[in-house]
Amino acid sequence: MSVPDPAFDRRAAALLRAAANDLKRDDTTAEADLGLAPGTFAGLTSGEQPVDLALLGRAAEVWPLNERDLLPGHDDTSRRVRIMRAKESEASSRVLARGGDDYYEYRDTAMSRVASYRPEWIRMLQPVDDNDADNPAVRWNRGHLLYQFTYFVGPVNYYYRWQDRSVCVPMETGDSVWGLPFAPHSFTARSTDEPAYILALTYGGDLVGDAQRELAILGNAAAHQAKLTPEGGPAALLRSFLQARAVTVEELARRTGLSAEHLAVLVDGDRQPTGTERAQLAEALGISERDLLPPSTGTDGGVVVQRSATAHRWHYPADSPAYRFTQLAGDASHPHTTALETEVLARSAEDTAWLSTYQHSYLYVLGDQPVRLLWEADGERHEEELQPGDSAYLMPEVPLSFVRTDPEAPPAQVLLLRIAGAVLPEVRHALGAMPEGGIERYVNEDRLWYSKEGN
Amino acid sequence: MSVPDPAFDRRAAALLRAAANDLKRDDTTAEADLGLAPGTFAGLTSGEQPVDLALLGRAAEVWPLNERDLLPGHDDTSRRVRIMRAKESEASSRVLARGGDDYYEYRDTAMSRVASYRPEWIRMLQPVDDNDADNPAVRWNRGHLLYQFTYFVGPVNYYYRWQDRSVCVPMETGDSVWGLPFAPHSFTARSTDEPAYILALTYGGDLVGDAQRELAILGNAAAHQAKLTPEGGPAALLRSFLQARAVTVEELARRTGLSAEHLAVLVDGDRQPTGTERAQLAEALGISERDLLPPSTGTDGGVVVQRSATAHRWHYPADSPAYRFTQLAGDASHPHTTALETEVLARSAEDTAWLSTYQHSYLYVLGDQPVRLLWEADGERHEEELQPGDSAYLMPEVPLSFVRTDPEAPPAQVLLLRIAGAVLPEVRHALGAMPEGGIERYVNEDRLWYSKEGN
Repeated sequence: MSVPDPAFDRRAAALLRAAANDLKRDDTTAEADLGLAPGTFAGLTSGEQPVDLALLGRAAEVWPLNERDLLPGHDDTSRRVRIMRAKESEASSRVLARGGDDYYEYRDTAMSRVASYRPEWIRMLQPVDDNDADNPAVRWNRGHLLYQFTYFVGPVNYYYRWQDRSVCVPMETGDSVWGLPFAPHSFTARSTDEPAYILALTYGGDLVGDAQRELAILGNAAAHQAKLTPEGGPAALLRSFLQARAVTVEELARRTGLSAEHLAVLVDGDRQPTGTERAQLAEALGISERDLLPPSTGTDGGVVVQRSATAHRWHYPADSPAYRFTQLAGDASHPHTTALETEVLARSAEDTAWLSTYQHSYLYVLGDQPVRLLWEADGERHEEELQPGDSAYLMPEVPLSFVRTDPEAPPAQVLLLRIAGAVLPEVRHALGAMPEGGIERYVNEDRLWYSKEGN
Repeated sequence: MSVPDPAFDRRAAALLRAAANDLKRDDTTAEADLGLAPGTFAGLTSGEQPVDLALLGRAAEVWPLNERDLLPGHDDTSRRVRIMRAKESEASSRVLARGGDDYYEYRDTAMSRVASYRPEWIRMLQPVDDNDADNPAVRWNRGHLLYQFTYFVGPVNYYYRWQDRSVCVPMETGDSVWGLPFAPHSFTARSTDEPAYILALTYGGDLVGDAQRELAILGNAAAHQAKLTPEGGPAALLRSFLQARAVTVEELARRTGLSAEHLAVLVDGDRQPTGTERAQLAEALGISERDLLPPSTGTDGGVVVQRSATAHRWHYPADSPAYRFTQLAGDASHPHTTALETEVLARSAEDTAWLSTYQHSYLYVLGDQPVRLLWEADGERHEEELQPGDSAYLMPEVPLSFVRTDPEAPPAQVLLLRIAGAVLPEVRHALGAMPEGGIERYVNEDRLWYSKEGN
C-alpha cells in the first residue's frame, strides 16, 4: 500500500462500509468501536479519507474479522490487459542449480495481481541420453501447490512421480500435460543442439485464497476429514449431506418414499442412484441434483498427457475461420481451465473473430511470427503488436481477437490458457439471483444498510 | 496484528514460503527481490522471525500479488469453540432509530474470525396493529449483502420487498425464513405485551472474500456479464462452456455425434438435453455432468418461508433418540446451509448422539432450559453448560453433542445454523486428489519446492 493507488483506496472504503453493515454498525457505533472522532466514518467509507493500516489493525482487533477481510486487491493492468515483452522476460532470467549442476533457466512471463497465474518459461539445461525415469541426471522437485499446465517445445523429457511410480514421457513440440498439485516432477533435454524449453503455466485456482486460509486454521486433521476422494463417488457426497442435515436413513425414507433398506445400499455406495432417485434424494435434502454428482477425472498418476498428434483440431468460426484451434491438456476435475493452441488465420480486423469468456486469459506468442492483439475495454477498442516470446494477461469478459501482422506471412501461433478465479458458478448464480441494484452494491458498497429517515 | 498471535505468525511464514515457491524464487532470489540480507529468508519462512507489515508491503510491491495474499486469518476460538454468554450479548445492546423512532434493539451473539457468521438477536420496538406492508409505521431497510436466516420468537411481522412487490408475513414462534442478499425487509411487533424478537443470522458464504475482491476489480459490467440467472437454465451453462472452450456447434457435433441442428436447439435452451446427451456434452467439453446442471431454488420473491407447523420433524437417531429435530428455512441454491431447531432429549452423556459435519456450526440456546454442550477438540473431550440466551460458534469437523442439564426438566431447545465457508466441494475434491503429504503442505508449506541437493 506504499504506492498510491486511488482505486484500491476506493475499494478499501467500500469494504469498510460493507463490514460495518454486516456487523450492524451505523456510523456512530462504528466510530465508538474504532475510536474515531464523531463524523469521520462517512469520510472513510466514501473514500475521501484513505483507510490506513492503523485503522485496519484496530478494526481487526475490535471486530470479529481479519486484516485481510478489509483489504481489496490491486489492479495492475492497463485497460484490462498486462503485457510482458520478451525482453522483460529475458531480464528476469535466473538459473537454478540442483545437486550442484545448473538445471533450469527460468524466465517470468506476464503475471497480474488480478489472477493466480504464475507462468514461467523454463529452459532445460540438463541433457540426457535415455528415457529412463531413474537416470541419476534427473533431479526431481518436491512438487508444489499450484496446478501446472505445461506446453513443450523441442525434445524435452517429462518425468512425473505419483505415490511410488516414476514415469518418463518423451515429449515433442506441441505436446502438453496438465498435473495435480504436489506431485514431484522434472524435465530434461534429449538434445544439446536443439532448443528445448517449456511453458510451465502454474495457477492456484480455488485452492489459493480463502480456502487455504480457512484450512490453515482448521488444521490437517480437519482437512483430511473434509476431503472427498474419487473413490468415494456419489455416495460420499450423499453421506456428507446426510450428516450436514442430521437426517437419518429412516427420515430420508419417509421423505423420498424409498425403502430404508434400499437407501442404506445407496448410502454405502454399493449401488448408484438412478436419475429419478437422485432427484428424489436432492429434493428430500433441500439440495440440487448437481450437489450429488462428483466431478469426473481423466488423470492417471495425477496427470493428463495430451499428444499434439491426437488432439482435437477445429476451425473457428466454422464457416469463415479466423483461427484454427488445437485443444491442449486439461481435466474435467478442473472444468474452468481451457488450454488452446491458436493458429491465427485472420488477415484483417474485419475478417477476425472475437472471443470472450468468464475465465481469465493468459497468452504467449509461440513460433516466429508476430501477431496483432485487439481487445475491447470499457467500450473502447485497443490494439498491440506482439512479438514471439511476448506474453499477456487479460481480464475475464474482455472481448479479444487476433490478426496476422503480415497477411502474406504464415499464420501466427498463440498459446492461450484460460482459468477461472474465484467467480465460480455458485457465485455467478448468486449474482444472477440478486435483485436490481444488488450487483452494484456487492461490487462497491456505497451506503448504510438503512436510511436514518426510515424509508 | 498488534496483539501477539504466534499461530498467526506461523501461518504467515508458511504463506510467504508458498508465495516464493509459486513464483519459483528460492531463498537467494527471494532475498534479492525483497531487499533482505542474505540468509534471512529461511528465518522468516520457518516462523523464527515474524513477517512484519513492512516486508508484506515490499513483497506486494515487487511481486505480482496483493497484501492480503500474504495474510492468514486469526483463530479466536478456544479449543475450536467460541462461546458468548447472554450477559455479554446484553452488554452489546444498542438501539437504532429509524425516522426518529426507536425501531430495533440489536445484540451481538457468538461470532468468530474463522467464519462469516454475523448473528444478531434483534428485538422489535415498533408495534403495529395490522398486517399491511404499506403501514407507514414500517421502516424498511435497503437490504444488505449477507444471506439472512431468521428465526422468529413471539408475534413478529416480517416484511419483504422484491422488485416492486411488498409483502407482510405474520410470524409465530418457531417460524423461520431464508432470504437472498439485497432484498429490503423489515420487522415489527404485533403486540406490546409479549416478547417479540428474532435471531437474524446473517452470513456471507462464498459471496464474501476472494470473489468479491475479484469482482470489485473487474467491475459492474463484467459482473453482469458473468451472472447466470435462474431463467438461463442448463443452456446458459452450456453456452458458457462453449465460449470458454471456443468450441463451435459444428465441432461439438463432430465430438458428440449429435447433429448440429439438434445441438443448436439445446444451446438455445429450446429443449433440455436428456441424461445421455448431457453425458455426451460433458465428455466432449472435458467437464463433468454436474457442470451442466444449474442449482435449483425454491425462493419466491427472494425468500423461503418455513412455517413451524408444516416443517419436517424427526428423531435422531431413529431407534433411541437423543434429539428431535425440526428442519427450518433454507434453499437448494445454498446447499451448504442447514438450519435446525433441536429439542435435546438425551439425559446423559452416555445416551446422547454425536454430530459432526464439514460445515461451520452456530448455536443459540432458545427457551428457558439450560443445556450441556459436549465437544471434542484435538483428541480431548470438553464440556460447557450453556444458559438460555448463550450462543456459540464451533469449527467444522468438531464432534459435538447436547445433554439436558436436569434429567427431570423439560427438553432444552437449541437453534443450530450450519454454513459452509470457503471449503466447498470443489476444494474438498481437490484435497482428496492430492498425493500423500500434499494436504499437510497445502495447509502449512514448510519447504522449498525442490532440494538444493537435487533429490
